[in-house]
Amino acid sequence: MGSAVAPWKSLLLSALESNGHFKHSKFLQLATIGTNGRPSNRTVVFRGFEEGTDRIHIYTDSRNRKIEELKNCPFAEICWYFTESWEQFRISGRMEVVDASCVDATKFKQRAEAWSSISPKSRMQYLGPSPGLPHLAEQPAKEPFLDSCSGPVDTFCLLVFDPDQVDYLNVRSDERNSFKAITSFGGEKLWETERINL
Amino acid sequence: MGSAVAPWKSLLLSALESNGHFKHSKFLQLATIGTNGRPSNRTVVFRGFEEGTDRIHIYTDSRNRKIEELKNCPFAEICWYFTESWEQFRISGRMEVVDASCVDATKFKQRAEAWSSISPKSRMQYLGPSPGLPHLAEQPAKEPFLDSCSGPVDTFCLLVFDPDQVDYLNVRSDERNSFKAITSFGGEKLWETERINL
Repeated sequence: MGSAVAPWKSLLLSALESNGHFKHSKFLQLATIGTNGRPSNRTVVFRGFEEGTDRIHIYTDSRNRKIEELKNCPFAEICWYFTESWEQFRISGRMEVVDASCVDATKFKQRAEAWSSISPKSRMQYLGPSPGLPHLAEQPAKEPFLDSCSGPVDTFCLLVFDPDQVDYLNVRSDERNSFKAITSFGGEKLWETERINL
Repeated sequence: MGSAVAPWKSLLLSALESNGHFKHSKFLQLATIGTNGRPSNRTVVFRGFEEGTDRIHIYTDSRNRKIEELKNCPFAEICWYFTESWEQFRISGRMEVVDASCVDATKFKQRAEAWSSISPKSRMQYLGPSPGLPHLAEQPAKEPFLDSCSGPVDTFCLLVFDPDQVDYLNVRSDERNSFKAITSFGGEKLWETERINL
C-alpha cells in the first residue's frame, strides 16, 4: 500500500531545518534536456512547497534557456545535496511553467503571490538585459522604475515541479531509499517506499 | 583568436583553493540523459584534471545507472556551485567511460592509477551489492577480501570528461562569462571567451 503523504517530504523538511543556518541549503541543481538534446544543469533556489502538496516552487526569468527547454521537454531532475547533514535528494518529475500568458485563476494568483514575496532587488533583475546574451558595455543610462505595488512583470515565471520519483541517500547512516509515486484507482497520488543498495 | 590554455581552468582551480577547507567543495552535480529520455542528475566527486589537459576525472561503479546512460548518450553537463566564493561553473562536454574492457594502454594505466589512489574503504564499496537495486536484509556473512596490491576490480570505472563549453557565474562580482571550445585548422582545441548578461 502506498502513502498519500509523501514520505520523503518530512526528510527534506528536516534536512532544510538542520542545514538552515547556511543560505546555500536552499540551492539545488536542476537538470533538464537542452534543445540540442544534451543535458542542461544549473543552480536554482528552492522557494518552498505549494501548500498542502509535495510540489516545489522555483522562480525564473522567462528569457532563460530553461524555459524553452522545459517547453520542449517538461521532465526535470533535481539533485539536492545538503553539505552539513550529508544527505542527497534526487527528485524526478514534471515541471509546469506558469508565465505571463497563464489564464488559470489559481495559478495566476500563485504567480502574483510569488512576485510579492521576492525582494525589490530581485525584482529589478527581471527588468535587466536578457540573461545569457552577449553583454553590451553600454548599459541603460538610468535604472528602470518599478512600482512596488504593481503585479509581476512579463519576464517573471513561476515553475511548479511535480515529483514522481525520489532517491534519498544518507551518507552518514549509509541508508538509501527509493520513493515512487503511483496513482490509486481513485486517482489519488500515492507513494511507495523501497530500501535500495548504496 | 582562441586560447590553447582553457581560461576557465585557472578560475576553477582558484575556486577549489579558496573553498578547499570544505570537503564538499569537490562535490559537483553531473547531469546525463536517462535511458527513458528524462534528465538524470547526481552528486559525484571531482578527482582532478588529467595532467596537462582540461579533462576532468570522476570514479564510479560500472553497475551504476549513469554508465548505461552514458553509453546511450555520452553528453553530460556538470553544475558546480562553490558555496563559499559564490561561484558557479556549468561545464558541458562528452564523457568517456574507461572500464575493465578498455584495451588502450594509456587509459588502462590511468584506470589502474586511479584505483591505487583511492582509500581501502572506498575500494570495498566496489565489491558490495549492486547500487540502486533493492536492499536485501541478508548480507554476505563475511567481508570480501581485497589484496591491497592488486589492480582495479571489474566494477571500477574511470570517467573522463572532455569539456567543450563552460558558463561561469560569479554572484559576488556580478560577472558571467561563456567559454567555447573551437577546433583550429591544425586540429588543436582552442577556447573563446565572451562576457554575457547575468
